[in-house]
Amino acid sequence: MLDFTKLDGLVPAIVTDNVTGRVLMLGFMNEEAWAASLATGDVTFWSRSRAKLWTKGETSGHKLRIREIRTDCDQDAVEFRVDPVGPGVCHEGYWSCFFRRLEDGKWRRAEERVFDPSEVYTQ
Amino acid sequence: MLDFTKLDGLVPAIVTDNVTGRVLMLGFMNEEAWAASLATGDVTFWSRSRAKLWTKGETSGHKLRIREIRTDCDQDAVEFRVDPVGPGVCHEGYWSCFFRRLEDGKWRRAEERVFDPSEVYTQ
Repeated sequence: MLDFTKLDGLVPAIVTDNVTGRVLMLGFMNEEAWAASLATGDVTFWSRSRAKLWTKGETSGHKLRIREIRTDCDQDAVEFRVDPVGPGVCHEGYWSCFFRRLEDGKWRRAEERVFDPSEVYTQ
Repeated sequence: MLDFTKLDGLVPAIVTDNVTGRVLMLGFMNEEAWAASLATGDVTFWSRSRAKLWTKGETSGHKLRIREIRTDCDQDAVEFRVDPVGPGVCHEGYWSCFFRRLEDGKWRRAEERVFDPSEVYTQ
């Protein structure tokens, strides 16, 4: 169904906003995370750093409700079009994790914060 | 600048349409591909299957002209907002590589072909 062989059991999962189409974040899924995402309707990743399943929003409440799922020609990548719950997806307080833009060889913030992470991630 | 350590020297590179924001394709870059993309202004990937640099469009002419580059909070993924040259990005003849949608547990084509691959990939 998806080709998990090319990246040691993982596929990159792009999350986009179902309304605007803009990229919100990128994570990785193994087969278990893929199955959990389909079963729950909320995007669930495999956390490489913590080596466990990670349902986006389990701490912050900022879940990603799946509206449409696409795959690419080689079926080794997947796109989730979602309705994000809450003001922003990024744990640093931004609407999208891709809030930095390359300008003159340096990464600069291209978006404003939409929430205060210290009020959301209280644990 | 970018964190190439998490994926054995690679970062996932999402390519989006600069006008609509929609996802066109996903590839991988090593440091050399990243440098080549910056130097030429055309998206250049590291081909995992062929183990060499691969400038998108070198055969088809369908290059991806870079208009903006973004990275995410962890700087381990990158988004290229591009103006695509030609009618479509996908080697199967579609505007986007993400032309298949999950419907009732099966991948189904959700877009129409915009060019004939056999006329473009003649080699």
